[in-house]
Amino acid sequence: MANPYHMTPDEFRTHGYEMVDWIADYLATIGERQIAPDVKPGDIRAMLPDHAPEAPEGFAAIMADLDQIVMPGITHWQSPGWFAFFPANSSPASILGEMASAGLGVQGMLWSTSPAATEVESVVLDWLVDLLGLPAHWKTTDRGGGVINSSTSDSTHLVLAVARHRAADRGPAEDMVAYASNQAHSSIERGARLAGYGQVRLIGVDDRYGMDHAQLRRQIAADRSSGLIPVAVTSAIGTTATTAVDPVRAVGEIAAENELWHHVDAAYAGNAMICPEFRVYQDGLELVDSYTFNAHKWLLTNFDCNILYVADRRPLIETLSTMPAYLQNAATESGAVIDYRDWHVSLGRRFRALKLWFVLRSYGAEGLRYLIRSHVALADELAARLGADPRFELVAPHPFALVCFRASAGNETTEALAAAINAAGDVAVTPMQLGDDAIIRVSVGQSYTEAEHVERLWNLIDTHTPAIQEES
Amino acid sequence: MANPYHMTPDEFRTHGYEMVDWIADYLATIGERQIAPDVKPGDIRAMLPDHAPEAPEGFAAIMADLDQIVMPGITHWQSPGWFAFFPANSSPASILGEMASAGLGVQGMLWSTSPAATEVESVVLDWLVDLLGLPAHWKTTDRGGGVINSSTSDSTHLVLAVARHRAADRGPAEDMVAYASNQAHSSIERGARLAGYGQVRLIGVDDRYGMDHAQLRRQIAADRSSGLIPVAVTSAIGTTATTAVDPVRAVGEIAAENELWHHVDAAYAGNAMICPEFRVYQDGLELVDSYTFNAHKWLLTNFDCNILYVADRRPLIETLSTMPAYLQNAATESGAVIDYRDWHVSLGRRFRALKLWFVLRSYGAEGLRYLIRSHVALADELAARLGADPRFELVAPHPFALVCFRASAGNETTEALAAAINAAGDVAVTPMQLGDDAIIRVSVGQSYTEAEHVERLWNLIDTHTPAIQEES
Repeated sequence: MANPYHMTPDEFRTHGYEMVDWIADYLATIGERQIAPDVKPGDIRAMLPDHAPEAPEGFAAIMADLDQIVMPGITHWQSPGWFAFFPANSSPASILGEMASAGLGVQGMLWSTSPAATEVESVVLDWLVDLLGLPAHWKTTDRGGGVINSSTSDSTHLVLAVARHRAADRGPAEDMVAYASNQAHSSIERGARLAGYGQVRLIGVDDRYGMDHAQLRRQIAADRSSGLIPVAVTSAIGTTATTAVDPVRAVGEIAAENELWHHVDAAYAGNAMICPEFRVYQDGLELVDSYTFNAHKWLLTNFDCNILYVADRRPLIETLSTMPAYLQNAATESGAVIDYRDWHVSLGRRFRALKLWFVLRSYGAEGLRYLIRSHVALADELAARLGADPRFELVAPHPFALVCFRASAGNETTEALAAAINAAGDVAVTPMQLGDDAIIRVSVGQSYTEAEHVERLWNLIDTHTPAIQEES
Repeated sequence: MANPYHMTPDEFRTHGYEMVDWIADYLATIGERQIAPDVKPGDIRAMLPDHAPEAPEGFAAIMADLDQIVMPGITHWQSPGWFAFFPANSSPASILGEMASAGLGVQGMLWSTSPAATEVESVVLDWLVDLLGLPAHWKTTDRGGGVINSSTSDSTHLVLAVARHRAADRGPAEDMVAYASNQAHSSIERGARLAGYGQVRLIGVDDRYGMDHAQLRRQIAADRSSGLIPVAVTSAIGTTATTAVDPVRAVGEIAAENELWHHVDAAYAGNAMICPEFRVYQDGLELVDSYTFNAHKWLLTNFDCNILYVADRRPLIETLSTMPAYLQNAATESGAVIDYRDWHVSLGRRFRALKLWFVLRSYGAEGLRYLIRSHVALADELAARLGADPRFELVAPHPFALVCFRASAGNETTEALAAAINAAGDVAVTPMQLGDDAIIRVSVGQSYTEAEHVERLWNLIDTHTPAIQEES
């Protein structure tokens, strides 16, 4: 007797159509929604029962609660008025790829546990090596390779731990040092702490917020002479605060001289490299051991789709490989296949490459370049307006599509402006502190953001910023 | 001008229906498919182009390639004849929840970045504390809490790294020791290596493959006297090889006496605890610091849905917390909310709780208990048949729904039998080595497995095993 609690395939078909309608309606109305919800801590919990239901509930009841309980607590990251943080791109093609992956429900931990899951992933990540102008030897067909992880924090922690493991014969982890600029993402400090490094050195930056490589060189020498063990350095291509670019080539040369693992965090800006005109910012990648970026930020692929490339896959595999009896199989023993469970901390893995494959084919390279270029042009235009207006100051270069500015009148005016913009409801920006300055980060990159949405943002900025008082 | 490369919401609706049909048809025919694909390494790659397309391709072309290129390389984990590894449960309700999550595309890294994503997760994981009979103080409303991770390997590595970090004042990581039984999952050895432990001690087991706690106690004492630093011990409730159960209470007492972090890996068997009759196997959980199981194994929720509980959330948060300028917000500063990015290595996170919420409501507790009990009954019946037949030997107890057996005639016969079963195509088992014995693991737990599928397996076993030669 079949399990009576399962929906039949035909019931799934009916409810699947309903869910597709629900998503299509959401996508069609996303720009009309108030981005940030009006809820206080505990409000959503208070609408949910204290216990799971004992008996099954119908799909209509679940959908009603999705609308009435969950939706009032959703922050609408997919609104075209989303200029906060970095974007978390989604797209119809990617959602369809996610559906296929969920429907198949395969585990790609080994090649043999679903060969297509591994080979499609290797192929699309090899495609991206060419699309992004990355070093050819990073392909799985050469000595490197790419793998999909959840977030940049996972990839960065992983390579820092691998670098520490490989340096074990140089001394205790407590004496090991990881380096990055003082603008580096918090995942580096956190990843190094979790990986057991004794120290993380945050190196100073120049006036464009790029790492001062001369200072890096001096610090490494000083650490060596005080008995510490320099092990890893992370360069950023596009920092989180201002999308600053570290001098990858210079850092790479210092890393090579000092036998440091050189990791590059290009979480956001790596996506821009699909347009050749931005590749000036990734000069020196042949001097890199590992590199990570998020197709889920600005390449129309739903989270999670962090991508880690390694120039040489052996250190990763040597650190992570184990072969318990229940996973032994002929394909692995042949050495002819990739077993991705040796490439990350997770063992099981979803078929995440499917959504990326759907996106690359649905948009083509030209569609993705269009997206990046249109966002960068919109950001440039906004920056030009801000830069030409004495009420505002740009606080950093804007090589990609993030514009950071402040009100010339100072922090109070800037903070009030950010609050007023976000209070409008249909636009979201990130207020933050940069050094002593309150600034506003405007990240143009949500999948559906067009000129009209940046115009709306400009109007809010313009309306809510008082004229400069004339000095007489 | 809107980006012309996006599907419109109505185009998404059309293609979404097509994808729902594709999934419904797949679910309706899953039992008729050959489980393991007939592909050699490189076959799928050879069918894919060397470069991503320059121009967009239509959805029909993508779907055609999904059928013609991807499907021939898929291993059908969702076949009801799947008895290999452990199951990777999926269900129509879970697929619908995945769809909703993909459609919303929110980032739940902070409470404030989508409050419902955090509160629904906390609530459903609190529900599971009651449903599974876990200690009440593991709820987020008390001093513990649960969080969804990708796989058990992630959770286990994380707690081992946290335990190492907190023990830093006791000495260098190279002197630290993590303990588990010699039947423990490979993620413990790998996680400890990546976390920088100097040693992993694999403790011997009794004749039921449960950890010999007296040996654990002696080993800890010996390690202490030789200057090493015992830091963490992992107990298994349901090992991967044979679903053996370690003596959690005894290990917990030893851990408490020695100030060890006590982690429990209940990856598979944790799901069974929704039925009170299995809770005898989790006696002693009040002596545990962290506990992990996979709802994606045997609770009808699509991968990834690993769940980590901690008895006290402070060590986790203290180790992982950072607060860069761009993430500062009033809700976090109030201390009234959970920010899940402080609970795991990833920063960004999908709204994975949605699919679990859909499953718990669609099946109700009674539907989930039905699933577990029906699988355990089928496994018991198979074990009874095997045990009563002189051609076979059960090689370990079967407290849940995994049956491990061998042919009495020896390893060659066992290996030939496993190969014959898997060659049939509609059934998959895992052949492995247990000590000196070749054995066959039969894991009854795929979402759609019913009596007829176990009957089919039994017929294959019966047909392909020669009669015992009479001794005269």
